[in-house]
Amino acid sequence: MFDAEIKPGWDINGNANGGYLMAIAGRAMAETAGRPPLTLTAHYLKPAPAGPCEVEVNMVRAGRRLATATGSLRMGDTEIIRLLGTFGEQTPGGPAYTREEPVDLPSYEDSAVPPPPTEGPKPAMFERLRIRLRPEDVGFRTGHPTGEARIDGWFAFADEEPVDAIALLLAADAFPPAVFNSELPVAWVPTVELTVHVRGVPVPGPLRCSFVSRFIHDGLLDEEGAIWDSSGTLVAQSRQLALAPRPI
Amino acid sequence: MFDAEIKPGWDINGNANGGYLMAIAGRAMAETAGRPPLTLTAHYLKPAPAGPCEVEVNMVRAGRRLATATGSLRMGDTEIIRLLGTFGEQTPGGPAYTREEPVDLPSYEDSAVPPPPTEGPKPAMFERLRIRLRPEDVGFRTGHPTGEARIDGWFAFADEEPVDAIALLLAADAFPPAVFNSELPVAWVPTVELTVHVRGVPVPGPLRCSFVSRFIHDGLLDEEGAIWDSSGTLVAQSRQLALAPRPI
Repeated sequence: MFDAEIKPGWDINGNANGGYLMAIAGRAMAETAGRPPLTLTAHYLKPAPAGPCEVEVNMVRAGRRLATATGSLRMGDTEIIRLLGTFGEQTPGGPAYTREEPVDLPSYEDSAVPPPPTEGPKPAMFERLRIRLRPEDVGFRTGHPTGEARIDGWFAFADEEPVDAIALLLAADAFPPAVFNSELPVAWVPTVELTVHVRGVPVPGPLRCSFVSRFIHDGLLDEEGAIWDSSGTLVAQSRQLALAPRPI
Repeated sequence: MFDAEIKPGWDINGNANGGYLMAIAGRAMAETAGRPPLTLTAHYLKPAPAGPCEVEVNMVRAGRRLATATGSLRMGDTEIIRLLGTFGEQTPGGPAYTREEPVDLPSYEDSAVPPPPTEGPKPAMFERLRIRLRPEDVGFRTGHPTGEARIDGWFAFADEEPVDAIALLLAADAFPPAVFNSELPVAWVPTVELTVHVRGVPVPGPLRCSFVSRFIHDGLLDEEGAIWDSSGTLVAQSRQLALAPRPI
């Protein structure tokens, strides 16, 4: 059992960010497995305020190349997320194929800091992160969504800490929901499940990120992310299933 | 604990198909949860021959709309797959957005039955399924891959059974690996993890399917699937992480 803390400042309206919660649990799981995450899935059971928490980790299998483990993040008697992941290292070299290039973005300097929501408190976690978006992708904040459920931009930590495998779990859920750029109402989008594939250790520098929702219907939506490091290597892919936006 | 059977005829070279294993476990989990899967993740621990198996299911949470459960499929003392899923129903209506249309395919009649591999036994599971591919997408079998890691086609059962939520889990891993149409060597592609989002109950008729691998490097590859029913509704999305092809 690992004691941990959901720190203040990683929340949206008082509820800790889903990628931040995954990173807390993923760190405990990686420590137990003795290697970083390759693919980690979290199912979100309850929203979590800031405060002390515990992570229980159980190994399913520890092989030579891969180790599989379950995780459970709890606050007191309340289970917040349940996880299942496989841990290991990438093995450099071997066959390579790339179907798509890194997302094309304006430079970090020419990208836009997302303005705070016009209603309600400013999400505190944006103090911790340096997120900059494609300039037209911030229009949803002022009633001018692009009409396409896509948000592209740059991710870095405010303190310029390097991004490791655990931080990629956080990066995979740190942007505003891509659905905000569709013309659907902007509202709370509760994550049901988030899976992140870690595909490399980023070299230093801000990460290029692209998030899209492809299919929204019958109360559910997907959101898919691709994250490249500054050398152009794909370092993470994510996909989540969420409940379609509901008025807060 | 559920007693089940990995039947002969669902294997590739003696190892049961990953989607078939997920469907066996997913059925037991759905029965316990009292509702069909919405998002299910399986981590593959050991290959499985045909034979009797057991599925252990543990409920994590059962709420009004959603229920979360873990699953473990074992043969004797050997754990084959570990799973984590959330179960529930789609809720018709509400906001809708579609970023992409159903994959464009030749008619079922004009599509191609994939020829058996030129070496080794014919995969037995193709007796149970009616899979037809875009004609150019079968070229990998005769040394003429398209060069693009993508395979599109139709899925139905040979006995014309309708495809329900459980069968969608099977459909998500039933095609030859998309990587076979890249110019990388055709070889065994062991799945590490497969996640399927069930987004609807298909209306009758063959399903339109598209599978692509976008990023292959450092010993790992992704494969993503999208499956539409004959009315044009997206009924499932899948993504898996697999070990890059290795000579058999």
